[in-house]
Amino acid sequence: MFKQKLQPRFAETDALGHINNAVLPVWFEQARTPIFEIFVPKLDVKKWTLILAKIEVEFVQEIFYGTNVEIHSYIEKIGNSSFVAYQEAWQSERLVAKGRATMVHFDHAVKKSILIPDMIRNQLVEHSIPPS
Amino acid sequence: MFKQKLQPRFAETDALGHINNAVLPVWFEQARTPIFEIFVPKLDVKKWTLILAKIEVEFVQEIFYGTNVEIHSYIEKIGNSSFVAYQEAWQSERLVAKGRATMVHFDHAVKKSILIPDMIRNQLVEHSIPPS
Amino acid sequence: MFKQKLQPRFAETDALGHINNAVLPVWFEQARTPIFEIFVPKLDVKKWTLILAKIEVEFVQEIFYGTNVEIHSYIEKIGNSSFVAYQEAWQSERLVAKGRATMVHFDHAVKKSILIPDMIRNQLVEHSIPPS
Amino acid sequence: MFKQKLQPRFAETDALGHINNAVLPVWFEQARTPIFEIFVPKLDVKKWTLILAKIEVEFVQEIFYGTNVEIHSYIEKIGNSSFVAYQEAWQSERLVAKGRATMVHFDHAVKKSILIPDMIRNQLVEHSIPPS
Repeated sequence: MFKQKLQPRFAETDALGHINNAVLPVWFEQARTPIFEIFVPKLDVKKWTLILAKIEVEFVQEIFYGTNVEIHSYIEKIGNSSFVAYQEAWQSERLVAKGRATMVHFDHAVKKSILIPDMIRNQLVEHSIPPS
Repeated sequence: MFKQKLQPRFAETDALGHINNAVLPVWFEQARTPIFEIFVPKLDVKKWTLILAKIEVEFVQEIFYGTNVEIHSYIEKIGNSSFVAYQEAWQSERLVAKGRATMVHFDHAVKKSILIPDMIRNQLVEHSIPPS
Repeated sequence: MFKQKLQPRFAETDALGHINNAVLPVWFEQARTPIFEIFVPKLDVKKWTLILAKIEVEFVQEIFYGTNVEIHSYIEKIGNSSFVAYQEAWQSERLVAKGRATMVHFDHAVKKSILIPDMIRNQLVEHSIPPS
Repeated sequence: MFKQKLQPRFAETDALGHINNAVLPVWFEQARTPIFEIFVPKLDVKKWTLILAKIEVEFVQEIFYGTNVEIHSYIEKIGNSSFVAYQEAWQSERLVAKGRATMVHFDHAVKKSILIPDMIRNQLVEHSIPPS
């Protein structure tokens, strides 16, 4: 599991007084940074080998400005060339949002998905969801 | 069906050279504005009666800067107090992304969902997906 | 003068109930798109020849969600390799914000500023602020 | 001086491969959070007593994804009801951007500026720029 602490930004609130829903995909993307690092050494954007196929986010509770948020990221499934990250946002001990992101290991030059090599797969497995 | 034309912003591109994925939920939210107007006369933020329960977005193709995008929004399902909008983003005659947003008719004062009245329901039905 | 009509997005409001201040630089950047087009044919991001050196924004009045905004962009000054755009945001006949952006004609390959050729200069001049 | 460490987000890059310029006002706003806390106990958005009158940002060097940024915020000037924050963004020991924000102590109920009380003034002074 990867943990990412975030300080909500005033610019991320909306007129309802809480964090705007459209911010969550940005936070979840940021919290996947350590996953990106497994695929892309030193996060070099010119050597990027991932694309995002799908996201989903459930908004469980209001998220407040003024209190830090912690994102927990797990690997839920690993296929041949794609995998799913499951993520939760927590604030003040409350689960406030959860989501999934399906990512594909991808060669941008030839525009094709590529197998996830074992070295990477093994690192992903270390962060998989523990059996409950 | 509601149509919203959008001009991609340079700030919305990312280092891969295309529109960043996390922008789509913002575009889809903007394209739901006419749906918001059905529930919230004059879009008065103090009289807002909707919350977002869930979103999902599928990224079908790269979205380019420099070419307009059109979002098509349909009502897919209507329950007692909630409904689902189905949305597609089109660019240069190509379907580039699609998504769903589950919204709940909600009383922010008492923090409870409320029935969708028939007057609103009838307007939503007019924008439902035609049988294929 | 260039005109850009914008529909404020719900995600762009903040907890004070209006459009967040940090949104203005994004709107002004979007409204400079026709200026970008003068320098970068077809807005091809791989052939980009501009960098931003400085921005300033004055917040004159609250900007409301639910009402369109129009941005007016003028060329204020043209130097050898740089120029200044002056921009105003109007909503409901009120001037709500104004700003300046200093841009430099730039060769990203060699990381050096380059002269603004006369053909471009002439197009910029057409959009300069009229003597008051 | 206030320090804020930030991890650049992938969504904050743009097609030129670096952090988009329009992100800096958001970062600087976030880095003013401890200043907000001086005025607004517990950062309660319903008790907000500040408005932003003006910002300016100079873009000194490219800002890269993959390396943390540190924002330094100082109080530069204090007037009767307004003050100016001066801010610098540093990445890998390089000054990459600097800016100023003019803020006004403000009563949102009556829409008027209000004097900065001595208790607040004294706290601001502690963070003023040291004589060089």
